[in-house]
Amino acid sequence: MSIQYILELLGTFFFAMSGALAVSEQDEEQDWFGAAFTGFVTAIGGGTLRDVLLGSYPLVWIEDIRLLYIILAGIACSGILYRWLERLRRTLFLFDTLGISLFTIVGTEKTLSLGFRPEIAAIMGMFSAVMGGVIRDMLTNKVPVLFRKEIYSSACLMGAAFYLVLAGLHVERNTNFIVSIVFIILLRLAAVRYNLSLPKFRSRKCMGKSSRYTSP
Amino acid sequence: MSIQYILELLGTFFFAMSGALAVSEQDEEQDWFGAAFTGFVTAIGGGTLRDVLLGSYPLVWIEDIRLLYIILAGIACSGILYRWLERLRRTLFLFDTLGISLFTIVGTEKTLSLGFRPEIAAIMGMFSAVMGGVIRDMLTNKVPVLFRKEIYSSACLMGAAFYLVLAGLHVERNTNFIVSIVFIILLRLAAVRYNLSLPKFRSRKCMGKSSRYTSP
Amino acid sequence: MSIQYILELLGTFFFAMSGALAVSEQDEEQDWFGAAFTGFVTAIGGGTLRDVLLGSYPLVWIEDIRLLYIILAGIACSGILYRWLERLRRTLFLFDTLGISLFTIVGTEKTLSLGFRPEIAAIMGMFSAVMGGVIRDMLTNKVPVLFRKEIYSSACLMGAAFYLVLAGLHVERNTNFIVSIVFIILLRLAAVRYNLSLPKFRSRKCMGKSSRYTSP
Repeated sequence: MSIQYILELLGTFFFAMSGALAVSEQDEEQDWFGAAFTGFVTAIGGGTLRDVLLGSYPLVWIEDIRLLYIILAGIACSGILYRWLERLRRTLFLFDTLGISLFTIVGTEKTLSLGFRPEIAAIMGMFSAVMGGVIRDMLTNKVPVLFRKEIYSSACLMGAAFYLVLAGLHVERNTNFIVSIVFIILLRLAAVRYNLSLPKFRSRKCMGKSSRYTSP
Repeated sequence: MSIQYILELLGTFFFAMSGALAVSEQDEEQDWFGAAFTGFVTAIGGGTLRDVLLGSYPLVWIEDIRLLYIILAGIACSGILYRWLERLRRTLFLFDTLGISLFTIVGTEKTLSLGFRPEIAAIMGMFSAVMGGVIRDMLTNKVPVLFRKEIYSSACLMGAAFYLVLAGLHVERNTNFIVSIVFIILLRLAAVRYNLSLPKFRSRKCMGKSSRYTSP
Repeated sequence: MSIQYILELLGTFFFAMSGALAVSEQDEEQDWFGAAFTGFVTAIGGGTLRDVLLGSYPLVWIEDIRLLYIILAGIACSGILYRWLERLRRTLFLFDTLGISLFTIVGTEKTLSLGFRPEIAAIMGMFSAVMGGVIRDMLTNKVPVLFRKEIYSSACLMGAAFYLVLAGLHVERNTNFIVSIVFIILLRLAAVRYNLSLPKFRSRKCMGKSSRYTSP
């Protein structure tokens, strides 16, 4: 088994757990099927969108049935263990951070290896990481993870760019995997700890001015 | 015409009706175009997602233009007849139940016949049945059909598994079609009549305990 | 460069601007990344859905990296210039109208040229034009552009049908492009100016009657 495959299995497992726990945190009435479905969509959504956009068939989870059982294992674990996952928010954050950092690099590398340009690889790396969560949020009618204040999707895009730069500098592939994944994890930890955010699209001053004109 | 094709035409017709009626029940101001669009998406959404995920091109409704006219007929019927469809909720429930049971089995069989594994066939059968409604609910900003309390998507998954078991026991194909469709219909009727639901993901006791820790 | 390609570049640019401005109009706290993502999805969503449904790979923006830079330029322009775009609503309306009219005809023509039937070409023309905005609205949890009162998606469908009729009458291709685009723009301007709308799916009288029965 390649390191890439192991990372993909791990990312899938963490995403299935974070997806199933996310739904149970929201809705106490959620049944097992709903939680499992949400875990499943969170785990496969990003990679599926990437492969459909690239026209890369068969999709990984359709070709490799082991992923399906990894997802079921992740859902079962989160259902059984959540009593012991006492600080649920922190656990969710950890699983999600591991999931997005692994999937960003796996998705970027896969797109590159299919012969696409680095710009496309960076976008697809980010999509692999965040789109599972975005689809989950769309299904459950929440404001998508994309538009949260702290650096989230942009951390994935920066991580993908970081991986591509190191690859351009001929850094050894497995080293690059690990370094770039750690880079994304640190970026996320820093963003949440120091409450970092990107500049606003519209500064306050201009906003006040134009809102006079945009009011109906 | 094979029995499979006739079932697909019927399912498409029922889904187009249930989609168009669903939107008019919600929003009295909805125009014909919006109702038609919703009927169209409800009717083709599930099968389209299945075929895109499997990479099975061309999509059925793009290859076979008759499906498009069946959908238009379903929408027109629901627009003209709803005065006489007095008990609208019951009618909607009936059309929707017929649609999901037909599409589950047609989708499961199609996936199998393309050479995919039974686990994938069961998922794709369920997707064929429920994803049209899920996309419709996402478009109209409602809580998706997936997360409704009663057994719905899980009835489709159980029906697909039932079909696969009978197929494994070499039950004659057309007989299996009919028996499995009736199985899903009965499951849905029982779920609604006796208010059946699946176990909660998070039991009340545990929930109370962990919610202490998850509060911000 | 063909006229079709120039129209596609222009439509992409206008859609990127309207997408980025749309998000900033809604949410003053939106950061640059969120606005860029929304502009990107608005610009590529419709064409991507069309090509995925038709199985036409590689997707245009993946094959032709110039589109990506056009989108970035559109987003940057809207970020820099919005102070001067004082009447934001009017500007948004203008960009959006240009975008949908260009994309409808480009999408219809592309589908025809891939050998699909005119009915499918008309649907795909409309999808190319409106689905970017629909996906944007689903991401941001708004009521999709599809279900707004005035003639919008239906103007695209009528424009696509108009193009197909003229093509059937052997009108010269570039002339047909321009005439059909102007047709859609005029239809939209007339719809907004004179507040035109399509007939309701459910007339008031019947509604009152049946609502008695549909109450739970």
